[in-house]
Amino acid sequence: MKALTVRPGQAGSAEVVEVEDPPDDAGTLLVEGVALGVCGTDREIVSGAYGEAPPGHDRLVLGHESLGRVLEAPAGSGFAEGELVAGIVRRPDPVPCGACAHGRFDMCRNGRYTERGIKGLDGYGSERWRVEPEYAVHVDAALADVGMLTEPASVVAKAWEQVELVGQRSWFEPKTVLVTGAGPVGLLGALLGVQRGLEVHVLDLATDGPKPQLVRDLGATYHSEAVDAVMQRLRPDIVLEGTGASAVVVDAMAGTAPYGIVCLLGVSQTGRTQRIDAGGLNRGIVLENVAVVGSVNAYGAHYRAGAEALGRADRDWLARLVTRRVPLVRASEALERRDDDIKVVIDL
Amino acid sequence: MKALTVRPGQAGSAEVVEVEDPPDDAGTLLVEGVALGVCGTDREIVSGAYGEAPPGHDRLVLGHESLGRVLEAPAGSGFAEGELVAGIVRRPDPVPCGACAHGRFDMCRNGRYTERGIKGLDGYGSERWRVEPEYAVHVDAALADVGMLTEPASVVAKAWEQVELVGQRSWFEPKTVLVTGAGPVGLLGALLGVQRGLEVHVLDLATDGPKPQLVRDLGATYHSEAVDAVMQRLRPDIVLEGTGASAVVVDAMAGTAPYGIVCLLGVSQTGRTQRIDAGGLNRGIVLENVAVVGSVNAYGAHYRAGAEALGRADRDWLARLVTRRVPLVRASEALERRDDDIKVVIDL
Repeated sequence: MKALTVRPGQAGSAEVVEVEDPPDDAGTLLVEGVALGVCGTDREIVSGAYGEAPPGHDRLVLGHESLGRVLEAPAGSGFAEGELVAGIVRRPDPVPCGACAHGRFDMCRNGRYTERGIKGLDGYGSERWRVEPEYAVHVDAALADVGMLTEPASVVAKAWEQVELVGQRSWFEPKTVLVTGAGPVGLLGALLGVQRGLEVHVLDLATDGPKPQLVRDLGATYHSEAVDAVMQRLRPDIVLEGTGASAVVVDAMAGTAPYGIVCLLGVSQTGRTQRIDAGGLNRGIVLENVAVVGSVNAYGAHYRAGAEALGRADRDWLARLVTRRVPLVRASEALERRDDDIKVVIDL
Repeated sequence: MKALTVRPGQAGSAEVVEVEDPPDDAGTLLVEGVALGVCGTDREIVSGAYGEAPPGHDRLVLGHESLGRVLEAPAGSGFAEGELVAGIVRRPDPVPCGACAHGRFDMCRNGRYTERGIKGLDGYGSERWRVEPEYAVHVDAALADVGMLTEPASVVAKAWEQVELVGQRSWFEPKTVLVTGAGPVGLLGALLGVQRGLEVHVLDLATDGPKPQLVRDLGATYHSEAVDAVMQRLRPDIVLEGTGASAVVVDAMAGTAPYGIVCLLGVSQTGRTQRIDAGGLNRGIVLENVAVVGSVNAYGAHYRAGAEALGRADRDWLARLVTRRVPLVRASEALERRDDDIKVVIDL
C-alpha cells in the first residue's frame, strides 16, 4: 500500500512510497484511510526540525489528523465495519508518569510519550492503518468530508475545558472571548465559543480571503488590527491565543478583563528576544487575578468532545475550512504552505 | 484616641494624630487595637503613590494588617469580649459586580471595591476600631504577639487555594515548591507549603540576617543564587513568586516542571522594559501545559484558613518574623524600610 513517509531530521525527504500493510500488533481495528489533515507540526517534521521514526525504522509514516472507515472490527470493540473513525495521536510510555498512569497522557510529565505520525510511531498517512479501539473515536457519518478536523477540534476542546476548569477557581460567568489567529485552531476555537453562547471575536492579519466571512458566518466579529488596540477596547474575559506570535502572546496576557483567562495554544519559535515591560505584565496579572494556561494535545474525552462539536456544526461551514484537497500521490503539494490556506487535506 | 493617618497623594504626610472614636455605623464590634503590621502597600501610600481617604475626609487612617481585642460585641455576633480578632480589608461596592455579589470580592471585576486603610475606608491603625462581625475573623488566643500576621497569611492561603484549584484541572500530585523572596509573604507561603507536606525551597538574595535560618527551621531549603539556575536544577511543580522582580517572574514562568503552576503574588512596578525570549517562554508554557495564576487579596474563607495555619505553626518561629516592634507614637520609624526587616509591627 502507499504511505506518505519522511526520514526524520532530513529536510525534503517526504515521499509517497510503497510500504507493508500495517502489522496486526498495531491495533485490532483495521481502517481504510479516507483523508489526512496537514498542520504546522507536519511541516516542521518535513523541514527536518522535528519527528522520530519508530525504533529500528528509517522512515516515519506521517499524519496525525486522521479520518478513516473501519474495514475490520473485532466483536466487542465498540466499532462496526463501515463506520468513520479518527485515531488518537498520543500514547503513554509503558512505564508511565503519574498523569499517564491516570489516563491523562495529554498532561504527560516526563516527555516519554509516543505520538503517531510524530514521535516514534507510524502515523495515519497510509491507505490502510490499524488502531487500538481505545485510541479510536467515532466520527459522525455526515462528516465524511471533514472528519479529519476531529484532531484539531480535540485540541480546541481541551483548551476550552482548561479555560472552564481554571475559571471554576472562583465565580466565573464569561461573556466575551477573543481568538487570536484565524487558522484551523482559531476558527474551531471560535466555533466552540459560539456553541457556548459567548460573544466571540476573532483577530487575524488577513483582510481578504475566506477568513473574515468564515468568522462572520459563525455569528462572530472579525478584526484585523493591532492586538493591543482590540484588547483595550474589548477587555475580553477569555483569550484563545492561536498564533504563537510572541508579540501577540504578550499583548494577550496584558489586556484581559479582571479575572481574565488566557489560553496559549500556539507553538512559537524560540531564540528571538523582544523588549517587554515584564514588571507591568506581572503587576496586571497579580492585581487582576488573571490566569494564563498553556494547552497542548488531547486525550480521549477531548476527542469525543471535539467530534461532538463538529457534529453540531454547519457542514458547509466546516467544508469551507478545507481550502485545498490533493490526492495522496500529490501529497508534496499539500505540504507546501500557500497564502489563504486554512486546512489542506490529503485524500487517501 | 490616637491614630496613624496619612493624606493620600501627599508624600511624607503620615502622622499620628488625635481622631474621633470610630462611629457606631463602622460596625457593631468595638475592638481595642492591639497591633498593626506594616507592608509595602502602606509604604506606597505613605510615599503618596497610592491610597484614597474616605469620602469627605482629608486623611485616611492607615493600616490593614490588624489585630485587636473585642471590647464590645452584640449578642449573636459570634464574638465575645476579650477575644482576639483581625479585620478583613476589602468590602464590595453597594452595586456589586458578579463576583462581589457572590461573596468573592477578592476577585472583583469592576474595581469599585473599598479597602480599609487603603482605598476609601479608614484602616485599623487606631487605638480603637469598629468592624462588622461578618468582616471579623477569630484569632487564636495564643497569637497575641503575632496575630497581625493573619492578613498576610490570608493572602498566602488564597494563593495556595488558587494553586490547588488550578492544579485540579487534571491529575496533580505536586512534590516540590519554590518560593521566591523570603519576605513575610514568602516565608508564610513556605510555612503553608511545609504544612501541606511538600518539599519546600526558598530563594532570596540575603546571605546573612535571619532569613536563611528561618527557612531551615521550617524544614525547608534556603537558596541564594540565580533564579534560573535554581529553577533548572529543581524543576519545581509549583512556584510562589513573591518578589515582583520582573526578571525573577520571567525565569519562574519559564522553568517549572511540566504541568507546573506559577502563582504570581508580588506587585511590581511598571514602565521598565527588559529583553526576553517571549516566543521561547510561550512555547514552554504551551508544550508543557504550564499555568500561571495571579493572586491578590483574600475573602473570609482565606482569612480563616490563614488564621488556622498560624494557629498550627510554631509560635517562636512566627515571633521571629517580627523583626521590629515600635509603639504607635513612633510609627514613623516603622514606616521606614531597613535592611533585615521582615515584618515590622506597630503596637497600638
